[in-house]
Amino acid sequence: MATCKAAVFVGANKPLAIQEFPIPALEDGATLVRMEMAAVCGTDVHAAHYAASPFPVIFGHENVGVIAEMNGGPTHDVLGQPLQPGDRIIFRSAACGKCFNCSVGESCQHSRPYGMMRCDEPPHLRGGFGQYLYLDPDPWILRVPDEMSTERALLSVVGNHTLLNGIERIGGVDPGATVVVQGAGPIGMGALIQAKVAGAGRGIVIGAPSSRLELARAMGADETIDIGELREPAARVERVRELTGGRGADLVMECSGGSTAFQEGLEMARYAGKFLVVGQWTDYGPQPINPSLVTRKSLRLNGVFSGAPRHIIRSLQVMQSAVRYPVERLITHRFPLDRVNDDFAAHERLEAMIPVILPNQ
Amino acid sequence: MATCKAAVFVGANKPLAIQEFPIPALEDGATLVRMEMAAVCGTDVHAAHYAASPFPVIFGHENVGVIAEMNGGPTHDVLGQPLQPGDRIIFRSAACGKCFNCSVGESCQHSRPYGMMRCDEPPHLRGGFGQYLYLDPDPWILRVPDEMSTERALLSVVGNHTLLNGIERIGGVDPGATVVVQGAGPIGMGALIQAKVAGAGRGIVIGAPSSRLELARAMGADETIDIGELREPAARVERVRELTGGRGADLVMECSGGSTAFQEGLEMARYAGKFLVVGQWTDYGPQPINPSLVTRKSLRLNGVFSGAPRHIIRSLQVMQSAVRYPVERLITHRFPLDRVNDDFAAHERLEAMIPVILPNQ
Amino acid sequence: MATCKAAVFVGANKPLAIQEFPIPALEDGATLVRMEMAAVCGTDVHAAHYAASPFPVIFGHENVGVIAEMNGGPTHDVLGQPLQPGDRIIFRSAACGKCFNCSVGESCQHSRPYGMMRCDEPPHLRGGFGQYLYLDPDPWILRVPDEMSTERALLSVVGNHTLLNGIERIGGVDPGATVVVQGAGPIGMGALIQAKVAGAGRGIVIGAPSSRLELARAMGADETIDIGELREPAARVERVRELTGGRGADLVMECSGGSTAFQEGLEMARYAGKFLVVGQWTDYGPQPINPSLVTRKSLRLNGVFSGAPRHIIRSLQVMQSAVRYPVERLITHRFPLDRVNDDFAAHERLEAMIPVILPNQ
Amino acid sequence: MATCKAAVFVGANKPLAIQEFPIPALEDGATLVRMEMAAVCGTDVHAAHYAASPFPVIFGHENVGVIAEMNGGPTHDVLGQPLQPGDRIIFRSAACGKCFNCSVGESCQHSRPYGMMRCDEPPHLRGGFGQYLYLDPDPWILRVPDEMSTERALLSVVGNHTLLNGIERIGGVDPGATVVVQGAGPIGMGALIQAKVAGAGRGIVIGAPSSRLELARAMGADETIDIGELREPAARVERVRELTGGRGADLVMECSGGSTAFQEGLEMARYAGKFLVVGQWTDYGPQPINPSLVTRKSLRLNGVFSGAPRHIIRSLQVMQSAVRYPVERLITHRFPLDRVNDDFAAHERLEAMIPVILPNQ
Repeated sequence: MATCKAAVFVGANKPLAIQEFPIPALEDGATLVRMEMAAVCGTDVHAAHYAASPFPVIFGHENVGVIAEMNGGPTHDVLGQPLQPGDRIIFRSAACGKCFNCSVGESCQHSRPYGMMRCDEPPHLRGGFGQYLYLDPDPWILRVPDEMSTERALLSVVGNHTLLNGIERIGGVDPGATVVVQGAGPIGMGALIQAKVAGAGRGIVIGAPSSRLELARAMGADETIDIGELREPAARVERVRELTGGRGADLVMECSGGSTAFQEGLEMARYAGKFLVVGQWTDYGPQPINPSLVTRKSLRLNGVFSGAPRHIIRSLQVMQSAVRYPVERLITHRFPLDRVNDDFAAHERLEAMIPVILPNQ
Repeated sequence: MATCKAAVFVGANKPLAIQEFPIPALEDGATLVRMEMAAVCGTDVHAAHYAASPFPVIFGHENVGVIAEMNGGPTHDVLGQPLQPGDRIIFRSAACGKCFNCSVGESCQHSRPYGMMRCDEPPHLRGGFGQYLYLDPDPWILRVPDEMSTERALLSVVGNHTLLNGIERIGGVDPGATVVVQGAGPIGMGALIQAKVAGAGRGIVIGAPSSRLELARAMGADETIDIGELREPAARVERVRELTGGRGADLVMECSGGSTAFQEGLEMARYAGKFLVVGQWTDYGPQPINPSLVTRKSLRLNGVFSGAPRHIIRSLQVMQSAVRYPVERLITHRFPLDRVNDDFAAHERLEAMIPVILPNQ
Repeated sequence: MATCKAAVFVGANKPLAIQEFPIPALEDGATLVRMEMAAVCGTDVHAAHYAASPFPVIFGHENVGVIAEMNGGPTHDVLGQPLQPGDRIIFRSAACGKCFNCSVGESCQHSRPYGMMRCDEPPHLRGGFGQYLYLDPDPWILRVPDEMSTERALLSVVGNHTLLNGIERIGGVDPGATVVVQGAGPIGMGALIQAKVAGAGRGIVIGAPSSRLELARAMGADETIDIGELREPAARVERVRELTGGRGADLVMECSGGSTAFQEGLEMARYAGKFLVVGQWTDYGPQPINPSLVTRKSLRLNGVFSGAPRHIIRSLQVMQSAVRYPVERLITHRFPLDRVNDDFAAHERLEAMIPVILPNQ
Repeated sequence: MATCKAAVFVGANKPLAIQEFPIPALEDGATLVRMEMAAVCGTDVHAAHYAASPFPVIFGHENVGVIAEMNGGPTHDVLGQPLQPGDRIIFRSAACGKCFNCSVGESCQHSRPYGMMRCDEPPHLRGGFGQYLYLDPDPWILRVPDEMSTERALLSVVGNHTLLNGIERIGGVDPGATVVVQGAGPIGMGALIQAKVAGAGRGIVIGAPSSRLELARAMGADETIDIGELREPAARVERVRELTGGRGADLVMECSGGSTAFQEGLEMARYAGKFLVVGQWTDYGPQPINPSLVTRKSLRLNGVFSGAPRHIIRSLQVMQSAVRYPVERLITHRFPLDRVNDDFAAHERLEAMIPVILPNQ
């Protein structure tokens, strides 16, 4: 029986271990995917240090692969394009269609993401940090256009689908709007790009260090605010006010996860402005926040932390068409499978923007 | 082996035939439903006269039933309420979650409605016009609250979910708005009720005969326009103008299916008004329509012909709470299974508003 | 020269003083209004105790009056209905049409509300707490339908227009939705009514004392939660969870102004639910609030504190059509002008729901 | 008394006549504008041939000018930027703030556009086709940024604000969407650009002649369809279908004004797609249109023919930021005032895309 390798999370604060797994025979409707590229996400790094994380798990939930073998599964992708071995694809477990969330158009309560399931039972290969990934029957598949780089395809599921969900929820970006992005990490970069693609006139990115702000400018930021220089929230709010003729931003996008960022964002938004809160997934408990700003400024806020299938379709289409954004530069580290822990280290040192694994190189 | 009866469509322009079928054993995950009430829909009547309609088919796609037997299928409904034999339910095939329409929040391209599948293969019982209905594994189920009448529950899937979809698409009803409903049949009645529930201040129903307009007034119509009296479209447009201080209606809902109704509706809507087009499913070919009204009045139009699961949930909740509308009166004919053809006849004579079958009486 | 009386705010923490003013001759385009009824608003009570409030001022910004005299001003109201002496009207300064807020559809930055301008210069009569009110040229006027009570007309500008603005901003109320209203004062009552008019299936009102909750039930509340009984926020959150099958409310409307209400509301809303924040006008400084709820629940929030002209039109139309709500009962105290301070006292003792002045009785 | 020249429409089918007018003294609050550039609009050309057009009129309703003299009028523009003589501006009559349309956020029913008022009474200078334009008190003014070309500023009011209104009404452009633009004239060019700015992934422009399609490609069209080659609507619909994987366009924008374009657009839109109808201002009477497409495809349609002030602000901001579109190339003809009739001729020959007057050159 043929085998392959995968990087396995074997418990909190231990390095991922490269292990060998059999390449399983395909049950009826299943699909075998040969992995091309998988991103190391902050969620992975977080889980790797979290005592209660279940293990063993093959991480890797942001993936691009190639169809290696089909066994009666889907013959066409979600756009109706034919599928065959050799096609590059993006994939997911399909939504169940039966739960409350599915019924109201929100993320399915039952579908399990690849890259987050335990791998101690066959077919084992349930995450992107391995040479192969076993796709259960009835997956959701989107074919990557031939002319698109694997990097661009991968980026469409690294935060960008979440941001497209957020922009949809917040009622879009007014054409020509001035947008402030709090945070200069991968999500902040995606926020900047998606806001610009959606019509923003000016983008102001707040973050650090200067190398990230430089990258932000390469991605289209018109202004940057270095939190290493303007260390106080009040100073940054004042700077935003200056840059917006005293009015405040039309749209603020919180992508930093910082504990003071929510209050800061409320202060940066203009009267009747919008505030999209993407970064506050981690629960640091109650923070000092002034709710009268919401009422007095007649603000519109939305939280978001993931994207639905339609956002992935749009995200891929945006990546395909918005070639003026050199998004490939956001992938700063590329390692083969056996150096996966170097990717994690680069992420932890904030040295990497988006580190990826090339499982078959 | 136990058997049961069902009414079978056996070919265009023939009466439905009462036939006997075995009550099948349940495959893993399947559910057996004992039918309580099924509506005879215009679609059924239409299909019964259409030469190309496939047969044999057990009609009945608007259904309320009782769980008779479960075999490892869903233990809770879409709202998380526990399910057990004896519960009254509304049900559907679940959306696939994988097609383009599912991805963008539209009606699934693959799910097959009960009441429209052929019945010559086991398990045969695929429509509501029978004593039992066999529900495939993984259905979408909504439990009917104990205190709600079966009539109200049934009405929630007789057009009302479609209208809630339409009202969502058209951007809601402005509170206090004046709404014109074209058509005084079941869909027109639903349009009137749903518009009022959604905040309309005044409802004007256009239709005939007078008995239907009387029923419309019982359902909350503030004004009615009898097309038997005002026979010309221009006269009806003029009447709407009079009733709206010369401005036109805030929202027009086309529920008549008439070939001139689209143009008439364009003329009835006010500047920057809305026009929901529900009734134009049947294709009568091109009609004389003036598109400059759309531009000059800056109108918003939306078509719609069905509802998604969220609209069924809302529809049931509306029926439950809006007890001030005596919707039970809309069910004008109730026959046991063996008189199903009398229901069809009452529908064809336009004598019935909503005729139903009580398959186990 | 004829004179009339008005109640004048003459400085913080002093009783309003009844003073005599000349009834001024009308400049070109001006209109003289004989006051019918004016509400004492919480804003007035607040201002009367606030050291920095400008004075002298004739309060009264929620008004219904009768046209006493016209001098070349508007001949028709905003709906195109002719105006003449004797007509009951609702009125406002018109929006300027030139400022940023006017341009983006928000409240005009320049229009000055009657009832908040100083009265030491002619024409003096700038608020509703007087027998006459002098309307500057170019006002915004809406005629009150003859068959409508003055009470209903007044209520259309007591919070209800603000709530209609809020409901518009939050994207409407889903038909059948379960709505929690935090606060059982005038705004809370309006929130309950407008949410129900807009399609809510169930309304849950949280407040005290029991007399107010009783009034809430008379206005259509399906459930009430007495904060005198459930004193802890956690207990109230738990109660909402129980009442919503463990899911949380579809929409929460904050109308209490309480300092813990924002955090409590975040906890009461369901996943992907909505939270309208009306009550947090008073700035109590930062509160302990957990922003991760916004992200993790994918919530939609909106602040609002006033209404635009379109909301007043809708509000009057809603009051006209929604006769099933006995809103007149919300007006608990009616005093002639010289007992205006009794109204203030009743408001401060929380004894009154909505106290009004009848300036000409 | 100083005088200046203006081109005057003196009756249908006569050339515009250059006439001399006194430069009037400014009444209180008025502003004198020295014209920089004015576009010849299709509306002007149409009016010049329409027997019932009122005259004499100085045309020119799409204008950029410089403040020549102020007399106590506005000191700041709509964004709060200070105004002084020498500033380039875009301007309009302000909305009245009192009519129904103003109240509901639509175009004011009372404001009179410069360039469409009769000029036989002082102050005469009421249109852009003159050296000076007299701005009444209380205008709506937007300052043109110093670094922006006058061409870009002018283009922001040549259709683009209307298109931004339309895109807002239709609910925005889904990121990555495929957009079909019917018509390759000035409005079609604006539609293409604004759709792309708003997030469209692909733009397909349908029109003629080839020179216009070439210009469309320079403006970002990914595909063009030449109606000189594909002469039949059915062939063009088929071509759109091919270009969209058989699905149809996500959004169709009708900018041609052609009498068959509405039906053609209905056929080109995908299921649940959008159709913005900008071009059907001219009333050619009823056309053969199949309304069942609206229902069966669950389409969303919107008409639009003008823009509100917020759309002008956004339009200018888009022109400022979207420098990747060489919009200056859309201005194909520039003539001094005394050759204004050459501009009209170029427009009528369809030789010009956007012809302009430079009144002071």
